[in-house]
Amino acid sequence: MKIGIIGSGVVAQTLGTKLIELGHDVALGTRDPAKLDEKKNMAGSLREWLGQVKNKGKVLSFKDTGAHGELLLNATHGQVSVEALQMAGAAQVGSKVLIDLANELDFSKGMPPGVLASHERCVAERIQSAFPNLRVVKSLNTVAATVMVNPKGLKDGDHTIFVAGNDGDAKAKVSNLLKSFGWVDILDLGPLSAARGPEMYVAMWVRLYGALQNGNINIKVQG
Amino acid sequence: MKIGIIGSGVVAQTLGTKLIELGHDVALGTRDPAKLDEKKNMAGSLREWLGQVKNKGKVLSFKDTGAHGELLLNATHGQVSVEALQMAGAAQVGSKVLIDLANELDFSKGMPPGVLASHERCVAERIQSAFPNLRVVKSLNTVAATVMVNPKGLKDGDHTIFVAGNDGDAKAKVSNLLKSFGWVDILDLGPLSAARGPEMYVAMWVRLYGALQNGNINIKVQG
Repeated sequence: MKIGIIGSGVVAQTLGTKLIELGHDVALGTRDPAKLDEKKNMAGSLREWLGQVKNKGKVLSFKDTGAHGELLLNATHGQVSVEALQMAGAAQVGSKVLIDLANELDFSKGMPPGVLASHERCVAERIQSAFPNLRVVKSLNTVAATVMVNPKGLKDGDHTIFVAGNDGDAKAKVSNLLKSFGWVDILDLGPLSAARGPEMYVAMWVRLYGALQNGNINIKVQG
Repeated sequence: MKIGIIGSGVVAQTLGTKLIELGHDVALGTRDPAKLDEKKNMAGSLREWLGQVKNKGKVLSFKDTGAHGELLLNATHGQVSVEALQMAGAAQVGSKVLIDLANELDFSKGMPPGVLASHERCVAERIQSAFPNLRVVKSLNTVAATVMVNPKGLKDGDHTIFVAGNDGDAKAKVSNLLKSFGWVDILDLGPLSAARGPEMYVAMWVRLYGALQNGNINIKVQG
């Protein structure tokens, strides 16, 4: 499948690498694809990434990435997601499925970061509202990038990942992608408004990270 | 132990019953203890509760409940907790331990309720700020009342409960009480500011409840 990842930080690079391993045709979208040597957020440069994936991936502009992907992933910071998707031509790409992985974190006051999500502030809902043509599915924002693509590496995969979105077919497609990563316990929380749950949960995640001093964590829903 | 529970709804009654079973001397605090026949929030009247516990519990005013308890529990709605604790004389009771179980839920727009917690809005921090003498420990707000007092009733107790607070001795006392309920996996999230984690997590809980149609749920932290 042709997949366009909007973003080029650690989440984008980690997902890109995994999706290439799985045989997909992956483009990473960045503001200025000529700046291949710029150090990225918590990750190496895009030139290093291209080396890691043996040049099987592409680095494109936001706009070309939006056009490339049959499936789109939003791996930008939540604060700039709508702007980045605007640049990716999200309003013009038709009814593509967008997996939204974003969180809004405020690192300005030190650690742990403030989690800006609230019952009135939800990245996924803001994206859906800005681009009603997209079929937005919230997922994967509740775990670190390493866990996203390798759930079996934590307690043999015995933990839960969430999907939320208004389109059942889109959620089924995303669930299939999650299964290809090794996810087994995939819980459908309902319509996109339910994305407030996983977005606000991140306030718990940052405290678990602080308490356990380890990002290789997740939760298993027991019920 | 003498325990004062501020509140008289379903959480207060369920905890009161359990604590009486465990041999504690329990008072439930209510605005007007003469109104024993008033139907309570999601629970029966306090006269019915007194019958259930074979009159081993007391129903007192907020003020007398605050004086009665060596240990205090806040089981009021988060929106009215500071006011109720004011009436309970919380500023005058010394350095008692207060377990804060409250959440701020907005049912005015239907189900699921809005969860008002945010990185700038946290009941436990508001209580600690209003009553700096109290040793506030946030706990138990992440599960339904039935799970609070009977964790073994769900997956044999294989799930996590959280504590957060600024006083280590207070957290140890609360952890012992939790153990007496059957809790095994008790996770210390750190100082009271970490209460934002479990308070914001409730936005996930209400979506889990919606998806699973069942309140007998919790999460197990895997890490």
